[in-house]
Amino acid sequence: MSFDPPAEVVRALVELALREDFGVLGDITSTACIAEDAFANARFVAREEGVLAGTAAAAEVFRQVDSSLQVSWAETDGASLDPGTAIGAVAGSLRSILGGERVALNFLQHCSGVATLTRRYVRAAHGNARILDTRKTLPGFRAIQKAAVRAGGGFNHRDSLSDAVLIKDNHLAALGIAKAVERARARWPNRIVELECDTLEQVAEAREAEPDIVMLDNMSPDDVRRAIALLEGVARVEVSGRITLESVGAFAETGTDYISVGALTHSVRALDIGLDIDG
Amino acid sequence: MSFDPPAEVVRALVELALREDFGVLGDITSTACIAEDAFANARFVAREEGVLAGTAAAAEVFRQVDSSLQVSWAETDGASLDPGTAIGAVAGSLRSILGGERVALNFLQHCSGVATLTRRYVRAAHGNARILDTRKTLPGFRAIQKAAVRAGGGFNHRDSLSDAVLIKDNHLAALGIAKAVERARARWPNRIVELECDTLEQVAEAREAEPDIVMLDNMSPDDVRRAIALLEGVARVEVSGRITLESVGAFAETGTDYISVGALTHSVRALDIGLDIDG
Amino acid sequence: MSFDPPAEVVRALVELALREDFGVLGDITSTACIAEDAFANARFVAREEGVLAGTAAAAEVFRQVDSSLQVSWAETDGASLDPGTAIGAVAGSLRSILGGERVALNFLQHCSGVATLTRRYVRAAHGNARILDTRKTLPGFRAIQKAAVRAGGGFNHRDSLSDAVLIKDNHLAALGIAKAVERARARWPNRIVELECDTLEQVAEAREAEPDIVMLDNMSPDDVRRAIALLEGVARVEVSGRITLESVGAFAETGTDYISVGALTHSVRALDIGLDIDG
Amino acid sequence: MSFDPPAEVVRALVELALREDFGVLGDITSTACIAEDAFANARFVAREEGVLAGTAAAAEVFRQVDSSLQVSWAETDGASLDPGTAIGAVAGSLRSILGGERVALNFLQHCSGVATLTRRYVRAAHGNARILDTRKTLPGFRAIQKAAVRAGGGFNHRDSLSDAVLIKDNHLAALGIAKAVERARARWPNRIVELECDTLEQVAEAREAEPDIVMLDNMSPDDVRRAIALLEGVARVEVSGRITLESVGAFAETGTDYISVGALTHSVRALDIGLDIDG
Amino acid sequence: MSFDPPAEVVRALVELALREDFGVLGDITSTACIAEDAFANARFVAREEGVLAGTAAAAEVFRQVDSSLQVSWAETDGASLDPGTAIGAVAGSLRSILGGERVALNFLQHCSGVATLTRRYVRAAHGNARILDTRKTLPGFRAIQKAAVRAGGGFNHRDSLSDAVLIKDNHLAALGIAKAVERARARWPNRIVELECDTLEQVAEAREAEPDIVMLDNMSPDDVRRAIALLEGVARVEVSGRITLESVGAFAETGTDYISVGALTHSVRALDIGLDIDG
Amino acid sequence: MSFDPPAEVVRALVELALREDFGVLGDITSTACIAEDAFANARFVAREEGVLAGTAAAAEVFRQVDSSLQVSWAETDGASLDPGTAIGAVAGSLRSILGGERVALNFLQHCSGVATLTRRYVRAAHGNARILDTRKTLPGFRAIQKAAVRAGGGFNHRDSLSDAVLIKDNHLAALGIAKAVERARARWPNRIVELECDTLEQVAEAREAEPDIVMLDNMSPDDVRRAIALLEGVARVEVSGRITLESVGAFAETGTDYISVGALTHSVRALDIGLDIDG
Repeated sequence: MSFDPPAEVVRALVELALREDFGVLGDITSTACIAEDAFANARFVAREEGVLAGTAAAAEVFRQVDSSLQVSWAETDGASLDPGTAIGAVAGSLRSILGGERVALNFLQHCSGVATLTRRYVRAAHGNARILDTRKTLPGFRAIQKAAVRAGGGFNHRDSLSDAVLIKDNHLAALGIAKAVERARARWPNRIVELECDTLEQVAEAREAEPDIVMLDNMSPDDVRRAIALLEGVARVEVSGRITLESVGAFAETGTDYISVGALTHSVRALDIGLDIDG
Repeated sequence: MSFDPPAEVVRALVELALREDFGVLGDITSTACIAEDAFANARFVAREEGVLAGTAAAAEVFRQVDSSLQVSWAETDGASLDPGTAIGAVAGSLRSILGGERVALNFLQHCSGVATLTRRYVRAAHGNARILDTRKTLPGFRAIQKAAVRAGGGFNHRDSLSDAVLIKDNHLAALGIAKAVERARARWPNRIVELECDTLEQVAEAREAEPDIVMLDNMSPDDVRRAIALLEGVARVEVSGRITLESVGAFAETGTDYISVGALTHSVRALDIGLDIDG
Repeated sequence: MSFDPPAEVVRALVELALREDFGVLGDITSTACIAEDAFANARFVAREEGVLAGTAAAAEVFRQVDSSLQVSWAETDGASLDPGTAIGAVAGSLRSILGGERVALNFLQHCSGVATLTRRYVRAAHGNARILDTRKTLPGFRAIQKAAVRAGGGFNHRDSLSDAVLIKDNHLAALGIAKAVERARARWPNRIVELECDTLEQVAEAREAEPDIVMLDNMSPDDVRRAIALLEGVARVEVSGRITLESVGAFAETGTDYISVGALTHSVRALDIGLDIDG
Repeated sequence: MSFDPPAEVVRALVELALREDFGVLGDITSTACIAEDAFANARFVAREEGVLAGTAAAAEVFRQVDSSLQVSWAETDGASLDPGTAIGAVAGSLRSILGGERVALNFLQHCSGVATLTRRYVRAAHGNARILDTRKTLPGFRAIQKAAVRAGGGFNHRDSLSDAVLIKDNHLAALGIAKAVERARARWPNRIVELECDTLEQVAEAREAEPDIVMLDNMSPDDVRRAIALLEGVARVEVSGRITLESVGAFAETGTDYISVGALTHSVRALDIGLDIDG
Repeated sequence: MSFDPPAEVVRALVELALREDFGVLGDITSTACIAEDAFANARFVAREEGVLAGTAAAAEVFRQVDSSLQVSWAETDGASLDPGTAIGAVAGSLRSILGGERVALNFLQHCSGVATLTRRYVRAAHGNARILDTRKTLPGFRAIQKAAVRAGGGFNHRDSLSDAVLIKDNHLAALGIAKAVERARARWPNRIVELECDTLEQVAEAREAEPDIVMLDNMSPDDVRRAIALLEGVARVEVSGRITLESVGAFAETGTDYISVGALTHSVRALDIGLDIDG
Repeated sequence: MSFDPPAEVVRALVELALREDFGVLGDITSTACIAEDAFANARFVAREEGVLAGTAAAAEVFRQVDSSLQVSWAETDGASLDPGTAIGAVAGSLRSILGGERVALNFLQHCSGVATLTRRYVRAAHGNARILDTRKTLPGFRAIQKAAVRAGGGFNHRDSLSDAVLIKDNHLAALGIAKAVERARARWPNRIVELECDTLEQVAEAREAEPDIVMLDNMSPDDVRRAIALLEGVARVEVSGRITLESVGAFAETGTDYISVGALTHSVRALDIGLDIDG
């Protein structure tokens, strides 16, 4: 599917999640209370409005718990959900469904929470700038969270430290802007070089250094406009630093290319999704 | 430390996190812009009020990135933080510090977010009931999130499906309450048996079945009071179901033993903590 | 199946076992002596009387060696076996069957050995007390051994250190019984608290401290009776400490709730089960 | 140490063992009842006569639980133990010692059980034949169990399917002895080729085929003598098949080179070793 | 298949390879440019002459990327390839095929490179001696490279340090040849003992020590002949040390049993194999 | 160190390598022939001219085999080596040194082979173009091989499929150049978009589509010149396709920015490096 994270990442994280939830004895409640041959149909249902994500991980959970379970999806990642929307279904052994339920929902609710929050930012930007995620992801969840950001209409910033150069204040201390950009270009000649600037003075220096992208950190919309004017024809612009749903619109109107929002992945409210089981 | 999660869980999750963040080429920015022999002192500093958690994971990050880094802590998990509180320090190779910075902060900010939210619930309950977490944890993070709940003054519900019996509506369909509790007792005679009830009628049945704990799901404070009266001397009581910071006080006053809150781990805002580096 | 250990634990242990048995070159004997297209039917057959366990692991071995093998079971875990009982069958590539044979048998014979020994203890207790396992399991085998104990009619004690409080002499040194139980209750308010006592004096103290379960370690049956009398209405009782098949009956008659036996998992004789192959 | 299994195998198995024993919450008893700064000295002490093995794994347990613990050994693998023999010591955090105690003992008791049983067989053979282990090891434990066999004075048979050719009845069905040995020699010209024979007729055939070793399976001592006479100058001889401590002496007197005993690793009684802690 | 390496080794290495190639975001090019429902047929085609190997790994790559892909092989490991030979086919989702293409080819080209080089040495030896590989394999690739050596008509030397005794100069320093062989025999009585000799003087000593195999290191063909004469009836002979395609024939004519060639696995040119896709 | 691959990748690959080399029994030769308390000093010495790489992996090998070994380096990755150059030293237990020797050398020789080959290409390009590696790396070795390319003076192309867009013929089938570049830009607005062209007609189209980089595949130097003229001011240029040491100079003179060479990592001759041990 379009928004699926890499399969091997999903497999590994689901293994981890099932290991911690099944423990040594497995689902002792179902073992005691559910007949071994009881079968059921279950449906994932949205309990509130939002955007769907995480179906690949949820499906993998049931596959690992019991490969004879039948999982099907009525909606795919990126779909808009209303309260009551039927998202997908699982059919098979009731014990197996109950065994995987919580972990599958944990993935689905978290990923859909990321996608829903992303879409809110995207809408608040009114198409004037692209919304980017950051590296402020939950450890181990980066691929899955970044797929959810895409499902919500956002775009992905660097995937890792290995992917693009991003020069921040700590990298500048010894070298200064011109030298730092030059060194980065020399060492990694075929990579995006992005430079963080905190002041208009730095932006003026950046104009000479010609990075591919300038990240404006914690500036006011007015200063962002000035910076964009300075950088026109030289570098694309990313706005960053505690952007909120309230402020994102004003920043988007400045003409910036990108707005990056750490909260998309570090401060997520789970979307309420349930699993209705017909015993 | 008191609130540390098991060491081998932390080690494995940190490995996962570093693998995704360093990728194939490692920190290409630092390689280009930071001298190999540059050393620095860095300090973790709180940027807002909250409760600290996640120090074990943050320390492990730097240990795995470069075992020659010196990490020390001025505060331990559970400490109250104010804006500006110095939490700890890292000293050594600047490249190594920058390489581990983001992942260490991702752990620290998320865990401290969990602990901070937990403490808010604990305070809002005014000591009238214990605040519990749930199994609604982020996949792979359960041990780390549950340690953060403890750091915030909360208590841990089941660690896994393997740990205690918790009979919910789906387990009751075929058996009914009396039979389900009886079966669970027979199969797992030395374990806690908890029963979820949605109505006072179920509570009345529960009174006969004598589980160890009755979980009252989505009831009003008044109904909770009635349920507690019915169950006095029979079972302890846990209140559950979309408890908010606004409502938790009223539920705590009912006399319930426990209040469980999924949001402690599934809907967490990262606490703002920074790493100040003296280049 | 009822007694199956968690699937992901089985998968991981089977991987480990195959890695060590196939080594770098694989089954060099079959490669040399068996035609690539030779097919066979093979049957697991009991060679002595006992109780079956370990079928999930044995099946997983063949699945990992060659997913085209057909494995079926005539008996399930917990079944009584006589010499000659046909347990199950494998059909497919002869090379693959021979490749997995030894590891599958190693699992099946060990697990059935655990189940058989457990059933002996259960029978010797004449239904007067429940037989429990301990944490004296083979490292890495806990889930699999505990499932085998259940197959033999035993019950599972703690799954791990994380599951219930069990206060032993080393925990008492600093605190004494009353304080230790109180602290445990305060820290883990919704968990079983069990207390080990070596003397009747300690039992008398335990009576005041009111743990959920008192473990009587290395007491005579007469002292066990006295302890039970002291603890009536206060705590359930577990007898522990070098219980043998000869002594278990006498302890069971004391009225104790549980008798825990380390030997169930730490001193196991493999049950003789063979794989008969029709070339 | 001489008998240590490969370090990376020990590391991996200890990780598995700690993960299953610490679970999600860790050692909840010690967290509640032991002060964080309590220190202790503990000593491993033999409680019965036997042979020591497993010290590498036991040390690794404490290293992984808490690398600040000090572990030292008064005896090394292969040492004879009497009741009361001080084996080694651990010093450091009491919480850490208690956290690792059970898993360390599980390794030490099992491995010493293997070594002790091996030495009994070795002694019963009176030096007339070498005692070998088999591939009937506990899955995942092969390296550790085979090291314990060496500690007990035994020798190691094949390490895996990859190590030497061992032609059994199922390999012979299509080819017959002469052809099977020839094929094995052709395919693996620089490896030991061993052939299992169940009858003296097969031994006569083996004499022509000239394998390196002939394994005589389930023969009487008298038949073993006849087989050895037939094979003199042609192949070394291994006796196999339900050898007991009672029968091993008689088989050893036949002049066989090796006697292999599955029970050394598949039917092991744990040796009683304790950890005495000075709180 | 005859030359397949052990399945669990292949699975693990393919996981590693996909993890590094898919990274955090997966195949971003295909996601952007290929429709989710586009299907294709693709064929592996040899672009130059050589010997095929690595099909098991290549198939596993596509299975892990997308288990719905259909992979079939027209040729098996060990087959001779000409430019244009159709080796096998993959059919299914175009995105999945493109996602796995590079890694599958990386395996196939490297393994076929090993097999092709091996066959060249085998042919240059004109059947006068067997060509062996060494432990000079790429870390993690040993099982896969050794399978490719077999596919090329070579034979496998030791699989690991654990497999046979090979006494080199560093082992001799303290003991001398006679003592070293004696010790090895005593410690590992049922294993191949091989001895490396650098001079004819050492060979003369070896003749008394009677190892199973003598490895002649860096000797001239004439000295090899002399050594063989000395060792006749005592030990088999292996020639080793910078053998080239030019020199291997002369060494083979000496009558040596084996010639071992490190270059088979440490200095491999990838065989040119392509994947032709019908979009 | 400058050229070190990410530490966690090295750790994991070294674990894999030691597991396969130590097998079940470990280094049986050293166990038999080397005294447990024998110590030695050993030196890595170049036996031929080349460029050093792989020291991080070699050091990690000895650390994992025996953490008490002392490893030090006289040269760092990227250093020029002559026959006899002392590269580094290992001191400690002789058994441990011999146990790790082969695997450490396997890493060092392969990585240095990559670095040496890279430097040859770099020199042959006379500074007229940058030499790039490709994704044609050995599975699991990408990070380590790409670090070796850097040590040799080359630059790294994409680290993975996740890193940059690279549109090849199979991606163009459905869309054509203009549309494919447009889609890639829309989906991944902040990433490098590279386009492969096989003909000058495609280059003309590329000129309109404005990718960041155009890869010219299998063109003659003259056509490369024409393409560069067409793309001036529009896109940087990469030349690709069976570049050899003989042809690379001519291509570099065309004025292309980059020349990518698959052989740097897929067809590597090990550099001859030895470990001299003073027993």
